[in-house]
Amino acid sequence: MISMPARELRRGRRTPQAARIWAATQQAASAAPSAGHPLADAALAAALSRRAAEIEAAFAAPQPAAQEIPALRALAYAHGVLDTFAGLIGRGFDRNVANLSEGEPAAELIARWGFHAVDITPCADGRLAGLVDYILRVPPAVVAYRKSYAGAMFDVEESVRHWESVELRRWREAKPNAADAPTRFLKIGVYHFSGADPDREGCAAHGHDATRAAAALQRRLEEFARAVEATHCCGASVATLLIGVDTDTDAIRVHVPDAAGRTDVARFVDNAALYETTRPLARDAAKEAVRAAVAACAGVPTGDPASEGMRWFCGYLLKNNLGQVDAVRAAHRGGYAERGHTERLMVVGDAVDDVQLRNLAFQAQMETVEENTFALDVGVRILRGLHEPRGLAIPLLVHFAYDERIPGAYERACVRARRLRAAILERFAQLAGDGLLYVRSLVRAGDRMEFVA
Amino acid sequence: MISMPARELRRGRRTPQAARIWAATQQAASAAPSAGHPLADAALAAALSRRAAEIEAAFAAPQPAAQEIPALRALAYAHGVLDTFAGLIGRGFDRNVANLSEGEPAAELIARWGFHAVDITPCADGRLAGLVDYILRVPPAVVAYRKSYAGAMFDVEESVRHWESVELRRWREAKPNAADAPTRFLKIGVYHFSGADPDREGCAAHGHDATRAAAALQRRLEEFARAVEATHCCGASVATLLIGVDTDTDAIRVHVPDAAGRTDVARFVDNAALYETTRPLARDAAKEAVRAAVAACAGVPTGDPASEGMRWFCGYLLKNNLGQVDAVRAAHRGGYAERGHTERLMVVGDAVDDVQLRNLAFQAQMETVEENTFALDVGVRILRGLHEPRGLAIPLLVHFAYDERIPGAYERACVRARRLRAAILERFAQLAGDGLLYVRSLVRAGDRMEFVA
Repeated sequence: MISMPARELRRGRRTPQAARIWAATQQAASAAPSAGHPLADAALAAALSRRAAEIEAAFAAPQPAAQEIPALRALAYAHGVLDTFAGLIGRGFDRNVANLSEGEPAAELIARWGFHAVDITPCADGRLAGLVDYILRVPPAVVAYRKSYAGAMFDVEESVRHWESVELRRWREAKPNAADAPTRFLKIGVYHFSGADPDREGCAAHGHDATRAAAALQRRLEEFARAVEATHCCGASVATLLIGVDTDTDAIRVHVPDAAGRTDVARFVDNAALYETTRPLARDAAKEAVRAAVAACAGVPTGDPASEGMRWFCGYLLKNNLGQVDAVRAAHRGGYAERGHTERLMVVGDAVDDVQLRNLAFQAQMETVEENTFALDVGVRILRGLHEPRGLAIPLLVHFAYDERIPGAYERACVRARRLRAAILERFAQLAGDGLLYVRSLVRAGDRMEFVA
Repeated sequence: MISMPARELRRGRRTPQAARIWAATQQAASAAPSAGHPLADAALAAALSRRAAEIEAAFAAPQPAAQEIPALRALAYAHGVLDTFAGLIGRGFDRNVANLSEGEPAAELIARWGFHAVDITPCADGRLAGLVDYILRVPPAVVAYRKSYAGAMFDVEESVRHWESVELRRWREAKPNAADAPTRFLKIGVYHFSGADPDREGCAAHGHDATRAAAALQRRLEEFARAVEATHCCGASVATLLIGVDTDTDAIRVHVPDAAGRTDVARFVDNAALYETTRPLARDAAKEAVRAAVAACAGVPTGDPASEGMRWFCGYLLKNNLGQVDAVRAAHRGGYAERGHTERLMVVGDAVDDVQLRNLAFQAQMETVEENTFALDVGVRILRGLHEPRGLAIPLLVHFAYDERIPGAYERACVRARRLRAAILERFAQLAGDGLLYVRSLVRAGDRMEFVA
C-alpha cells in the first residue's frame, strides 16, 4: 500500500507539469469570455474557466512512456488517468469561489431563506459531473449531502436515515442551527435532458424522455417527504425541489413549488428562455425579471411572504445558472459541440465531488456490484465505446470514503474497496483480461488517501 | 404473488394440524420439569417449553404428499418447511411471557437501571437462535434492535446510524424517554463457545477459540463506543456489555464492567458455576449470591452507587439465565445431546426473531450475496451437511422487512428479495439444479407478509 497524504500529492503533481499546466490555465483565463449577460459575474466565470482548464491540462500532461505492446500502452494510459484524477482530488481546489451572493455569504443567505441543509441528488450521468460548482454554483459548504443515482432514482430509506442524522445534530449540537429554528431540510432532485437531440442524448435510465424523467423523480421526492412525515411525529417535514438540466447548454429548469408547496412537472422556469429575455436588460431589470418569473411560476405575487424563502432560493439558483449558460455560450458558441458522453473515467463506490467538471467521470455509487449492476453495466458500456476504438483501457476507480474518527473505519473501507474491485473484475473478466479495463481502489478520509493493493 | 395476512396464516395453520399440535404441546407442558433451581420460575419454564414443543410439532406435522421422484420429494420437503416457518411467524407467539421481573414490568425496570434502549448483536450461529426468549429471557419490548453477524462481528458505522435514529426519537418525541433523562443506550455483544467440545463446537468464525471470539467482539464494542464519542459532541456515550454463551448448556458468562466501565475478556461471572453454588440455597440467599458474584466481578461493594444500574441489569440476566440452565438440565439431562448444528432452515436478508428456538434457523443478514458471501457459504455448507444425507433440499428463506408507512417501501423490498434470491441461485446453480437447494422470498411489514414470486 502506498500512502499519499494530499500535501505530497499536491507537491508531486506540481513539480513535473507545473509549467505546462500554468501556461494552459493562463491561456484559459485570458480567453475567458467577457460576460454577455448582465447577471454573469466575470471574475467568477474566469475562475471557473481557469479551474476547468487546469483539470483538462492535468489529463493532457504526458502519460507514462508509451509501451511497445499495445495492451500495456492501454493499461499505462488508464493507470495514468487514475493517478491524475487522484492527484486532482488531493490538490484540493478552492471550491468556495462562488461563496458570496450579492456580497453576503451564501450559507447565511440560505439559512435566512429557510433551509438548514441542502441535499442534492443528481443523475449519475457524467454530463452532470459539474452540477454543484458549474451548473448550480452552490458553495460546497452549503451542500450537506450529495449522492448520484442512475436516473436520479435515490433510495428513500437511506435519505430518511440521512435526514435523521442531520436533525440529531441540530438537537444535540445546534449545528448548523438549533432544532427549534424555523428552517427546513431541502432535498433537490436533478434530472436531465437534451434540448438539441432529445431522443438520443437524454437520460438513458428514463428512455430519453424528459417528462418521464421529471415525473419519476418528482414521485420519488414526494415519497421521501411522506416517509419523513409518516415515520416521525410532531410535524416533521422537509422541502423538496425538482430541477432539470439541458446537458447541451447547462441551462436549468426550476420547478418552483406553488403556494401550497405543490410541484408540477409541467410548470417550471426555463432558464434558457429567461437568458434570452434578460440578456438585453440592465442588471437591476434582469434581477427583477428573474424574481417575476419565479413568482409567476409559483402563482403568487412577488411579495407573497409564505413562499418567500423558496422563491428567493430558486431565484438564486437561476441567477447563478445564467452565469453558466453565458459561459457555455461564449466558450462553445451556443452549446457544447459534444452533446453526448466523453467521460475520461468511471468512479464507483462513494461519489467524488471535489473535482467538478462536465463529462469528467461517470459515477455509479454502490457498495456491491449486485445492488447496482445496471448502473455499472451502463457505465462500462459507455466508457468502452469511448475508449476501445482508441485502443485505450477504461480507467475505473473504486473509491470509498471513511471517517477517520471511527476506529476500524479505515480497515473496513479497505475491505469494501478490495471486495468491490474483485467483483468488478469477476464480472468483466474478459474485458480486463483483454487489457480493456483497468481497476484501482482508493480509500480516503478527507485529504488523506491511499491506493489499496 | 400470494398475499398472506398473518391472521389467515394463523387460521390456515390451525385447522389441519390443530389436534396433533395441541396434543404435542400438552404433553410438553405436563413433561415440563419441576424447577430444580430456587430462582427458576416454573410457570415461565412451562410456557417456554410449551412454545418450543409447538414449534417442533409444526415442523413434525405431515409434509405435502411424498412424491415418487426423490428430487421432487426433497423440494416438497423444503417448500413445506418454509411454509411452516412463515406460518409460525404469522401466528404471532405471545413473546411477553417473561415480561415481569419480581412483579415489575421489565421495560420499566430496565429504564430505572439506566438504559433506554437495548441493542443485541449475537453470532449468526443457529444455536443462538433462542437467545432473546430462552437464553437471556429479555421481553421483546425491551430490545430496540437485534441483528446477528457471523462471529457477532457487527458493522460499527451501521450501529452508529442506529444509535442516531434512537437518540433522535428521544429528542423529538421523548420516546422511550426524554433526551435529558440520565439513561444510556446499551449494546450487548454475544459470542459463543462449547464447554464440552471446545475445539470442534465453538464459533467457526473465530476458529473455535472462545478467548479469541470474546476479544474480537470486545474490541468491536469498544470501537462502537469510541465512534459515538468521536463523531458526536456534548458527552455522547453508550454502554456496552460482553456476554458469552456455552451452546451445550445455554449457560452464559457475563463480563460485568468494572467501576471505571472497563470490560475484561478474562473476568466474568460464569453462570454454570453460579448455578451449582446457588442451587442448594433458599431463594433469598440465591439472589444475594448472584448480587455478590456480580459485585465481585465488577470489583466494587454490593452497595456501590455508580455501577448500580449495570450491576442490577447483569444480575437480572444471570437470574433469567439460571432458569434456562435449569430447563436445559432437566429436559436434556445436563446439556444438549446434540451439541452441533441441527438447523432446519436458513434465513438470509433481514433477521427473523419472532420465532425463537435453538437451532431452528441459521440466519445470515445481508442485502447482497457479495457483501456477506462468507456467512452464506458457511450456512449452506452446514445445512447441506445436515440435509443432503437424508435426501432433503436445504430450505432457504430470503426475508426482507419493510416499513409500510414509507411509500414505495414494499416495492423496494420486493426488488431486494428477488435480487438476493437470484444471486443465491446463481452462486449455487449446481446445488439448486440438483434439487438440493430450494429458495423462496418473503417480504414483510409487521404481521402482513407475502411470498414474492
